[in-house]
Amino acid sequence: MSTKTLILALDLLGTFAFAVDGALTAIRTARVDIVGVLVLGLITAIGGGVIRDVLLGVTPATFQDWRYLTTALVGAGVAFFLSRQLTHLAKPILVFDAIGLSLFAVIGATKALAAGFGPLQAALLGMITGVGGGTIRDVLLNRVPTVFSANSHLYAVPALLGALLVAIPHTFGLTWGWIAVVGALVCFGVRILALLYRWSAPVPPGSPPL
Amino acid sequence: MSTKTLILALDLLGTFAFAVDGALTAIRTARVDIVGVLVLGLITAIGGGVIRDVLLGVTPATFQDWRYLTTALVGAGVAFFLSRQLTHLAKPILVFDAIGLSLFAVIGATKALAAGFGPLQAALLGMITGVGGGTIRDVLLNRVPTVFSANSHLYAVPALLGALLVAIPHTFGLTWGWIAVVGALVCFGVRILALLYRWSAPVPPGSPPL
Amino acid sequence: MSTKTLILALDLLGTFAFAVDGALTAIRTARVDIVGVLVLGLITAIGGGVIRDVLLGVTPATFQDWRYLTTALVGAGVAFFLSRQLTHLAKPILVFDAIGLSLFAVIGATKALAAGFGPLQAALLGMITGVGGGTIRDVLLNRVPTVFSANSHLYAVPALLGALLVAIPHTFGLTWGWIAVVGALVCFGVRILALLYRWSAPVPPGSPPL
Repeated sequence: MSTKTLILALDLLGTFAFAVDGALTAIRTARVDIVGVLVLGLITAIGGGVIRDVLLGVTPATFQDWRYLTTALVGAGVAFFLSRQLTHLAKPILVFDAIGLSLFAVIGATKALAAGFGPLQAALLGMITGVGGGTIRDVLLNRVPTVFSANSHLYAVPALLGALLVAIPHTFGLTWGWIAVVGALVCFGVRILALLYRWSAPVPPGSPPL
Repeated sequence: MSTKTLILALDLLGTFAFAVDGALTAIRTARVDIVGVLVLGLITAIGGGVIRDVLLGVTPATFQDWRYLTTALVGAGVAFFLSRQLTHLAKPILVFDAIGLSLFAVIGATKALAAGFGPLQAALLGMITGVGGGTIRDVLLNRVPTVFSANSHLYAVPALLGALLVAIPHTFGLTWGWIAVVGALVCFGVRILALLYRWSAPVPPGSPPL
Repeated sequence: MSTKTLILALDLLGTFAFAVDGALTAIRTARVDIVGVLVLGLITAIGGGVIRDVLLGVTPATFQDWRYLTTALVGAGVAFFLSRQLTHLAKPILVFDAIGLSLFAVIGATKALAAGFGPLQAALLGMITGVGGGTIRDVLLNRVPTVFSANSHLYAVPALLGALLVAIPHTFGLTWGWIAVVGALVCFGVRILALLYRWSAPVPPGSPPL
């Protein structure tokens, strides 16, 4: 299996996990029908990439590619029919979700750098690719996006870290493929550790304790 | 009257109905002033087409065309001044709204196919053109978009059906104009029947009954 | 100091004020961590310009320019660490915010006219540039955007006025720089007077009094 095929397979795995997670969140949070479940799963899976491409000024790529659309719709469909059974698989879904987050962050930053954007923009776009879909889903479900909240266990921070690990070396001319691998692994590791040890990002001074 | 003029007239009628409906929803739901009523009516009317064009990677067309902007602003303005009287016209507004939904779905799918997108994308973009404006309005009014909810009487389903009826024949090389007419009529008919007979889309297994 | 440098300095001052205001609103409204504060401050500052550029069909300019990104992130960071102290500076922040609103409205309308859009579009895009960032912030904080509400003290109206004062003369071929200055001053003046005298825009007939 070539590197490109491996990245595509992992990327589709992440898309699937995001769609399942988005659809389950929709089912748990609101009275949605099958249209709501499918659309909210799809938006969770590809929304981050769409915002990234809008900010890059290009036609949204994951929306154009039927493999991402189909994977996301299948993931949301599985969640629709098996939502009760999937509640027992919350932990594996979180791991797949972390894989998706890592790949989306690194791929997003890489696309931004390839389009000629600077490292600050690339890091932000990597983070947005990772967290944007879930953010739109939360807005559509009428709740404050978990990514901004003080008990999200660093969802955005590892995405930003992974994207920075790709963007900063790039400004010094370092663009080897293994840098992206390190970025993705650091994002994945920090996210998993944050979940295990319930890490939180700092809150504003004077905020009431959790 | 040529076909093109007829389509434009119907499209503007749909835009007007969407704007009236969006403005009335804003007045009923929140404490909005005239700015809020006009902007939310405008967004309801042209928001779906804007999302479609962003996903197609082109400059939003309905925003560029002053006829759509003016029609939408006039519709929202009428709703602002006559909101109490218009509550008695809820049923004709629903019929005009169904006309708008049908045309928007079919026109959206046709634009996507003309831009070279595949049938799955075209069907989704047709649906988004129809339901996107109302969805942004609901998000701005801080409520779960009715299109996702289990008692929306199939708002998104007929739009998707109408768009699919245009997109699928197109993949087999069939692009006659009457296919679009059939798509729009099916969308319109299903929507009206769903309203009359209170049809609902399936909810996830295990959901509490309505 | 050249005119261009002066405009850039004022524009960055407005960006800073918008970011501070957006971050403080986030801290007051929801349980956000540092990621939420920085991102919501950034979105408040550059969101309006991003929506404008998406509607113009061009790559978002303020997102590409590191000076705007950095200014916005510094503003949000200051608000994060000094949120308690800054509550005493609410009035100066409102004045800076009005400066930002005025410049954003006039610059937005000017960019739309330069891109060949008509006066109606240019006026709307000027208004959107001014109020769009705060609107996305409010949506993300799960509340009805203040700009639509009946007690916003005309936030959108002066922006629209300032943008119209640039757009209308332009259709008659008048494009002198001082027209933009007049537009910005009128926007600033109306906003400040609306705050001082608690002006409100009309509400729909029959609405309950405030």
